[in-house]
Amino acid sequence: MKNVPLATVERVAKYLRCLNRLREKGIKVVSSKELAEHTRTSPEQVRKDLSYFGRFGKTGTGYDTQKLSRKLERILKAQRKWNVCIIGAGSLGSALARYQGFKDTGYNVVALFDSDPEKIGEKMGQAEVYDIENFKDVVKKKDIKMAILAVPKESIEEIEELLSKANNIRGILNFVPVTIKLKTRRKVAIIDVDLAQKLYILSYLIKRGREMT
Amino acid sequence: MKNVPLATVERVAKYLRCLNRLREKGIKVVSSKELAEHTRTSPEQVRKDLSYFGRFGKTGTGYDTQKLSRKLERILKAQRKWNVCIIGAGSLGSALARYQGFKDTGYNVVALFDSDPEKIGEKMGQAEVYDIENFKDVVKKKDIKMAILAVPKESIEEIEELLSKANNIRGILNFVPVTIKLKTRRKVAIIDVDLAQKLYILSYLIKRGREMT
Repeated sequence: MKNVPLATVERVAKYLRCLNRLREKGIKVVSSKELAEHTRTSPEQVRKDLSYFGRFGKTGTGYDTQKLSRKLERILKAQRKWNVCIIGAGSLGSALARYQGFKDTGYNVVALFDSDPEKIGEKMGQAEVYDIENFKDVVKKKDIKMAILAVPKESIEEIEELLSKANNIRGILNFVPVTIKLKTRRKVAIIDVDLAQKLYILSYLIKRGREMT
Repeated sequence: MKNVPLATVERVAKYLRCLNRLREKGIKVVSSKELAEHTRTSPEQVRKDLSYFGRFGKTGTGYDTQKLSRKLERILKAQRKWNVCIIGAGSLGSALARYQGFKDTGYNVVALFDSDPEKIGEKMGQAEVYDIENFKDVVKKKDIKMAILAVPKESIEEIEELLSKANNIRGILNFVPVTIKLKTRRKVAIIDVDLAQKLYILSYLIKRGREMT
C-alpha cells in the first residue's frame, strides 16, 4: 500500500461516517457524487482518495455501502475494538466519556483518570474514574492503547512525564491547547484537537465569504 | 490577498496558538524552525504559509512573536470579539461553555439554547441557558454570529430548520456526527468536528507507525 497523505486519511474517515449513516438508513448503493456532497468534497476527490486503497465499485453503478464501509473500517481501525482512556475527569473529560460517537464506532472508553479524590471511583458514562497514581497498572490491565487528554493546561507537564513512561500507550488525542512532546523513543501518534483553532478558521471563512470546509 | 488554501489557514491558526504561548512565556523572537517544531510541520512549510499573508521577519533573525501574532490574529479573526452561542446544553454543550480556550482567544460564549425546561435559566460557565423557542430573538439581541452545535443526532433536522431561518448566524461549528445542510441562500460557513473521526485517524497512524499529524 502506498504512503497515503494524511489529508486523504482524514477524508476517508469522513466517507466512512457517511457510509455508516447511509447503511443505517437502509441505502445500499451510493455514487461518488453523493458521497462527495455528504462530505463537502468533489466526486473526483472521492475517487482519487479511494484509489489509494484498491478498486471499489464499478463505473456507473456506484459503491456498495456495506462492502465499502467494511473495507474502509478495516483500513482505518486495523482492529475491531480499541480500549481508550481519558485523562482528566473535569467537564470536558466527562462529556467525552459520555460521547455516543465513540462507542458507535468501536472505540470504548474503559477508564478515566484524575487526581481529585472526590472524583475517583465515580462512574462517568460506562467508565470509572481511577486515581492517576495507578495509571500504568490500569492501562496495562485494561489493555488501553489510546489516551484522550482533557486536563487543565497547568497539569500538562506532569502528564507528558507520565505518558512518556507508559509503554502501553501508542496514540494520544490531545484536547489541551498545548502541543505536547513525549520524552520517549517509542513511536507515539499524537493528534492535537484545538477547539479554539476551529473558531479561528470559522471566522476566517465567514470573513472571506467561503462556505465550508 | 490570494485565495489561501484551507490547509494553510488551519496551520496558521496553529502558529497563532503557538505564538501566544511563547508570548505568555516572555519569548520575543522565534525562528521558523522552532515554530515548525511546536506545530509539527517543517520550517519550509511555515515560511510558505506565512508568505501568503505578507512578509514577516528578516532572514536569520526570526519572527517577532508579538507582531506576528497580532497580524495573524487580525487575518483570522477579522474583528476583535465574536459572540458565540451553543445549541444543546447537555454534557458536551456545557463542557464547551466552560472551555477556557474559547475565552482566551476572544470568542465569547454568551448564550446556550435548549428545550429542556429544567435547564432553561441555568448558568453554565459565563452564559445562561435560553429556551430554543427564543433562538432568533436572543441571537439578534446579543449580536451572535456563530453557533456551536452540540445536540443529540436525533434533533438535527429541527436545528437545521432553525438555523436556515436565523439570518444572523454566519458560521457553524458542528459537533453532531452528521453533515448538516441548510436551506438558505445566505453564505454560512460550516465546520464539522467529528471526534470519532479523530480516533479513526489515530488508529490508522498507530498501525502505520506514523508519529504525528
